[in-house]
Amino acid sequence: MNIEQYMIDLGQQARAASRQLLRADTNMKNSALLAIAELIEAQAETLQAENAKDLQAGKENGLDAAMLDRLALTDGVIAGMAEGLRQIAGLQDPVGEISDMSFRPSGIQVGKMRVPLGVVGIIYESRPNVTVDAAALCLKSGNAAILRGGSEAKFSNQALAKCIAAGLEKAGLPATAVQVLETTDREAVGHLIAMPEYVDVIIPRGGKGLIERISQGARVPVIKHLDGICHVYIDVDANEQKALDVAFNAKTHRYGVCNAMETLLVAESRAQEILPKLAELYATKEVELRGCEKTCAIIDAKAATEDDWATEYLAPILSIRVVTDVDAAMDHIAQFSSGHTESIITENFSTSRRFLAEVDSSSVMVNASTRFADGFEYGLGAEIGISTDKFHARGPVGLEGLTSQKYIVLGDGTIRK
Amino acid sequence: MNIEQYMIDLGQQARAASRQLLRADTNMKNSALLAIAELIEAQAETLQAENAKDLQAGKENGLDAAMLDRLALTDGVIAGMAEGLRQIAGLQDPVGEISDMSFRPSGIQVGKMRVPLGVVGIIYESRPNVTVDAAALCLKSGNAAILRGGSEAKFSNQALAKCIAAGLEKAGLPATAVQVLETTDREAVGHLIAMPEYVDVIIPRGGKGLIERISQGARVPVIKHLDGICHVYIDVDANEQKALDVAFNAKTHRYGVCNAMETLLVAESRAQEILPKLAELYATKEVELRGCEKTCAIIDAKAATEDDWATEYLAPILSIRVVTDVDAAMDHIAQFSSGHTESIITENFSTSRRFLAEVDSSSVMVNASTRFADGFEYGLGAEIGISTDKFHARGPVGLEGLTSQKYIVLGDGTIRK
Repeated sequence: MNIEQYMIDLGQQARAASRQLLRADTNMKNSALLAIAELIEAQAETLQAENAKDLQAGKENGLDAAMLDRLALTDGVIAGMAEGLRQIAGLQDPVGEISDMSFRPSGIQVGKMRVPLGVVGIIYESRPNVTVDAAALCLKSGNAAILRGGSEAKFSNQALAKCIAAGLEKAGLPATAVQVLETTDREAVGHLIAMPEYVDVIIPRGGKGLIERISQGARVPVIKHLDGICHVYIDVDANEQKALDVAFNAKTHRYGVCNAMETLLVAESRAQEILPKLAELYATKEVELRGCEKTCAIIDAKAATEDDWATEYLAPILSIRVVTDVDAAMDHIAQFSSGHTESIITENFSTSRRFLAEVDSSSVMVNASTRFADGFEYGLGAEIGISTDKFHARGPVGLEGLTSQKYIVLGDGTIRK
Repeated sequence: MNIEQYMIDLGQQARAASRQLLRADTNMKNSALLAIAELIEAQAETLQAENAKDLQAGKENGLDAAMLDRLALTDGVIAGMAEGLRQIAGLQDPVGEISDMSFRPSGIQVGKMRVPLGVVGIIYESRPNVTVDAAALCLKSGNAAILRGGSEAKFSNQALAKCIAAGLEKAGLPATAVQVLETTDREAVGHLIAMPEYVDVIIPRGGKGLIERISQGARVPVIKHLDGICHVYIDVDANEQKALDVAFNAKTHRYGVCNAMETLLVAESRAQEILPKLAELYATKEVELRGCEKTCAIIDAKAATEDDWATEYLAPILSIRVVTDVDAAMDHIAQFSSGHTESIITENFSTSRRFLAEVDSSSVMVNASTRFADGFEYGLGAEIGISTDKFHARGPVGLEGLTSQKYIVLGDGTIRK
């Protein structure tokens, strides 16, 4: 197999399919999504037989229990994929939305139309259900997709790809609107991220190593997030109960997620009162505390090192720093945050306004848990990832993040004088 | 001078200034813009003395008359810069705009806030007035700017930089909010476009060679447009007079601009009627016509080669192709357009809807001249460039294109269940 030529073919087919998708109305796209859901349910046995090959290989290659768990297409996962497809079919179609049409003195009427990005390349790791989820989001937003799953899931992904292709054709759409790479050779990824003529954006979904590698090599825009080093700052004017509730929830609701709090900042004037109560709460969950000098003088905690402020633990570990005020808190955040999500606990109106305006992260919150930073919680109805970039999409990326706006101009033979 | 260290210093200062700009309200930014306008007017003589050095060097280096003309800070250019600053001060401030705030079942209230991108790097060629224009747009949109002008204008740019710095300080803003490179060494550009930790976006303004070089080497997002190969398609259902008016205006209103028509497409059933009349009009302006075989059978034109369809003439030259219908026209556009601006001339409602939805360019028009694709004509009040990319900003880029939106979440001690 000549991988370069294979990728060029894929790219050309995707580009051609993306033009056909511009002609597909909402009904056609929804019909395809519903047809894929039915096919996945009808072919559950086949899918699970293919999945068994991946699971067998995974065991032989020594994948750990957690990885095998993510890889498994259980009845529940299959039902979940079908349900997800039906939910996405139910979402409002962002494509074609026209806004801000206004007349100009020259006589033209100008505004914006929301349009697909074109061709989206998605590179992801072991979970095979991402294949269906990513295909559905791209299709609904009118984009052709090129999907590259992990080698651990290759049989499962190819079986799912067949359901997707059959569903697309049933709805009268080109099967090439969603293409799943048949090779898991790394060289293919190298081409995929460097074909701006065929691919408009790359979305890597996976660990930090994968995302860094993709970002370094990409010759097309990348929607990515590297780290989730999220902060909660308990302000001078915080309500104690709200501070305890949010600081506990943001750390302990789930540990291995990007929107969990990793560093707690506490205003010096409130530390003596609040830290001991928080330490008691965290002890019930066996959260390891690492504190600055002032923190360690108040509660029992390990001494935090400079590295702690820059670490995404994804674990029951929390670093705590006592700061003088909101300015010091925002300085700390500017230095160490990954730009994902930060929350302030305060009853002070003006302090909250400053925090909202001056903290440069994709989600900025007042009196709310960082755990809310999520496409479903925000009402997007779906999420393809969370962007910590500032360009294009920022924060949870739903259907709208997979679209762009072009200008449209209507006239009556109008010419420029 | 250690250029790498110099650029890192510049970048760190810009990043710090961008944080201070997040704290600057609209009044402070407008005060700075008005102060800069006054300083430029008051120091016209100094500016022209410095400009004379550039003009003298330009003559010695053999710059042609057109380039010297662009370089000159005449009284008119100085008045224009001051006027431009006052206009930008008068525009609505996009920063801080909050939209779509809605309550979710969880109890949080979520929406979006418009925020600056952060630090904008702008690389441009000889016109020194771009220094002021770019600084003003970045400042109003709350971004710190690093500007790198052409070596031909180095004395003029440094003199303007002093006015800008003084105006910023007068308004209580950091002088480092706008930094003009003191070196025109190419190595500096190499660093500027590869410092994602300090620079959020690069905007190259200049010839295609410059833009391609920047795009190839950039490690940060680039807002760019390479070519303006714009099309007008005269449809089967075109009104003859509108077709003649728009096709004539789009080509002959100005030649050296990116939104001029370069290729005319004509539906076969209308070619016999319309082409001779158009040829007569173009003859009055001595526009050279290059046609496909069918065109040459109807009017007197040179035979067009395949290269003609892919060429931005920026000159009184027009390529003409007879096509069967709107589908063939859109196929031609998909193959050869640079994604800038295309217009259809038609009275057919359904054909116009298809053209608007299916043509993948930054501006798509019906019965209007491509010459309208311009930030001022669209009512943006200013324009830093026209983007032919699909990601982030598309089409004319005004203040809004220099901003992004982050999510804001308001709660009442709200936690995720």
